[in-house]
Amino acid sequence: MYLAKIYVTYKPSILDPQGEVIKSALHRLNYKNVESVMQGKYFEIKLDAENLITAKQEVEAFSDELLINVNMETFTYELSEIAVVGD
Amino acid sequence: MYLAKIYVTYKPSILDPQGEVIKSALHRLNYKNVESVMQGKYFEIKLDAENLITAKQEVEAFSDELLINVNMETFTYELSEIAVVGD
Repeated sequence: MYLAKIYVTYKPSILDPQGEVIKSALHRLNYKNVESVMQGKYFEIKLDAENLITAKQEVEAFSDELLINVNMETFTYELSEIAVVGD
Repeated sequence: MYLAKIYVTYKPSILDPQGEVIKSALHRLNYKNVESVMQGKYFEIKLDAENLITAKQEVEAFSDELLINVNMETFTYELSEIAVVGD
């Protein structure tokens, strides 16, 4: 079993309105030290692939196909093998 | 300058409807290997704290106060010092 941790963020050229709103809210709450806020999405996906290479291919394929908006977003991921107790 | 990477996820006892929907969609797209999907939020926040201890305190305080719903969500974070070119 593999665990993929996938981080989806806006591409650098894309405006992140949610991040700006959160930054303003933090400043109002007196966290004046905050310089920038970027909000993205985070996925933890478990998959039962044959090996690391297949797992990698699947993660890259379905992230592009379903998880991100390829025009505006980009993603990075970490993939690790996990033990399933009782298998 | 410090960079905090904050990962917000549902607490284990809380149902994650978005994750379930994404899992079903991946199965329909023929990614049958996918066992579970958890969707959370991801923030990258830059802050200008005096030192690592202050940065840590601020990140924990504002995450609890603004970024998460303490009843349903929990968070983990990584904090690192970053160099600002031109400073």
